Order: sequence, then structure tokens, then C-alpha cells
Amino acid sequence: MEDIKKLIRSIPNFPKEGIIFRDITTLIKDKDGLKLLIEKLIEMYKDKNIDYVVGAESRGFIFGAPLAYGINAGFIPVRKQGKLPYKTISESYELEYGESIFEIHEDAIEKGKNILIIDDLLATGGTGEAVIKLVERLGGIIKEIVFIIELKDLNGREKLSKYNVDSLIKY
Amino acid sequence: MEDIKKLIRSIPNFPKEGIIFRDITTLIKDKDGLKLLIEKLIEMYKDKNIDYVVGAESRGFIFGAPLAYGINAGFIPVRKQGKLPYKTISESYELEYGESIFEIHEDAIEKGKNILIIDDLLATGGTGEAVIKLVERLGGIIKEIVFIIELKDLNGREKLSKYNVDSLIKY
Repeated sequence: MEDIKKLIRSIPNFPKEGIIFRDITTLIKDKDGLKLLIEKLIEMYKDKNIDYVVGAESRGFIFGAPLAYGINAGFIPVRKQGKLPYKTISESYELEYGESIFEIHEDAIEKGKNILIIDDLLATGGTGEAVIKLVERLGGIIKEIVFIIELKDLNGREKLSKYNVDSLIKY
Repeated sequence: MEDIKKLIRSIPNFPKEGIIFRDITTLIKDKDGLKLLIEKLIEMYKDKNIDYVVGAESRGFIFGAPLAYGINAGFIPVRKQGKLPYKTISESYELEYGESIFEIHEDAIEKGKNILIIDDLLATGGTGEAVIKLVERLGGIIKEIVFIIELKDLNGREKLSKYNVDSLIKY
């Protein structure tokens, strides 16, 4: 994955002083980088009997939808409050300032279905936990969790230690 | 595309009284529906020499990323104000109440590149116009514009009459 890591742009002091933001837009605009990344994900999960890929708004959509397509699974979006049109259940999660709320359609996942959760970034693990709760409240079985980028120093993986967690690029 | 249309859920009175919302979450959670839809898009655009697929936050990501992957193009996100980490240019567009702002990275598209714009819904055409302006200000050549759903009565296609516009499912 070193070829892919080189395509990620590092932006100092975004969104605030002292943070180095890992910008995946330079990776996904590179057709070979995008192809390599999605093919790697498909290779990792094609034989895992995943029924649904669940991705959180919005960068989780960019990686989750092609992965779902590639492993012949369905794709289920987790969205910010108020965006989903049908009946939902919700979980709040902490942001640096205050909190935010994720929702999923209450009929999105049938009980016992095998779920892969995908997101672009594993930092503190807070958003991942919220997605996990939503999936488990609907009766989904979380088989795999994958992040494109993992910031190891933030120890988010500890919060998710009950699950099969993988990541492609580590900082 | 009738098989796909059947998978779309119609929700009356969302987001407000009198509107029928066309809910694509029931389509993309169906693995066969998702596969059929993405394969149709790939078939339509694989020989059009598209360099970049441009999709707007957030539902444009769900369809744009697998299409870019499938036709071996790069994917470029257009996002709401404040979400992109690098230097951006912006365009405002009208919502039912007030307006909103889309941004694109100022170095996202090199001059003369062939662009396909994708979004989930063609309604009045307002958000499409904002994406077009962003792409053209960066020097991109808009070869194709495609929507998953077109609401014909709203005449959004008239606003985009200079371009090759297609849609998969019409109401």
C-alpha cells in the first residue's frame, strides 16, 4: 500500500492548528490509485459472505459503494440527522466541539445479516462506535470493520477491540 | 431500467407536505439492484474517454465512486462549504429555503480534462448548474452529465440544454 500512501496529501493545521489532515482527494482523483485501492478492498473481503457494506456520510460513501459493488453486496448509508427520508434510529457521537448524530433507516438491516463497516479514517474511534451501535441495534452481525487510514497514536483500535478491524494505510 | 425503478421507495410528504421523495436507499441495499445500476452506467460511459467523474456531496458519491472505478477514471468530490481541506473555489446554489455553497479543490481538475458529472437527482437543475460552473472555472470539459433519477415535470433539463444529459429513471 506504499504506492497508495504516496498519493495522500498531508495538510498541516487543518481543521485546526497542530493537526495534520490526511487528504484522500489526491488519491481518489488518481485513476490508478483509486483502482488499486478498491481492488485491494475487494480482494480482502470478497470471500467473507458479506451481505451489506455500511458506510457513514460522506467519505465512507466514496469507498463503501465501490466495495459493495465489487463484492456483490448491498450498500447501506449511515447519515447525519435529518437526511434519511424514512423512519430512523439514531446514535450521538462526540466531535471535538460538541456532538453530532448519525441515523440509519430502521428497516435497513434484517436481523442476522453479515455486515462490513467501512470508513475513511480511524482516529479516536468515536464515529466507528456510533455506527457499530446502530448496526447492532438492528440485529446486524458485524463481521469486519475496515478503515482506509489509521492514525495509530490515537489508539482508536482499542475501542473496537471486540471486532475484526483492519486498515490499509497507517500513520 | 424498470427492474431498478421498482426498487426505489416513494415517500409522501418528505421533506415537506406535497412532495413525493424518491428514496434510493432501498435500491442500493439490494445487491442485484446496485450491480445492475452500476453496470448500466459503466456500459454507457466506458468508451467516452472520461478522465474524471465529478460527484456532489453526498449521494453523488454513492454512484460516482463506483462508476469512476468501473470506467478507470479518477473521482473528484464537490463538497459543502468548509469540508475540503485544501484551497477551494466555490459556487452558491438555491435551496427551497435560502442557499447553500459547493466547493471544489482549486487544483482538482487540470485544464482540458474530460469530465463526467453525476448526481442522484435532476429536479430543477440548480445544483447541477453549480457543479458545472465549478468544473468549467477550472478548465474541465464537460462531456457527459448523468442523473440516476429525473423528475421530468420540473424541467431541470432545460437549464442544462448545452450539455449531453442522460438519466436512468424518469418520473
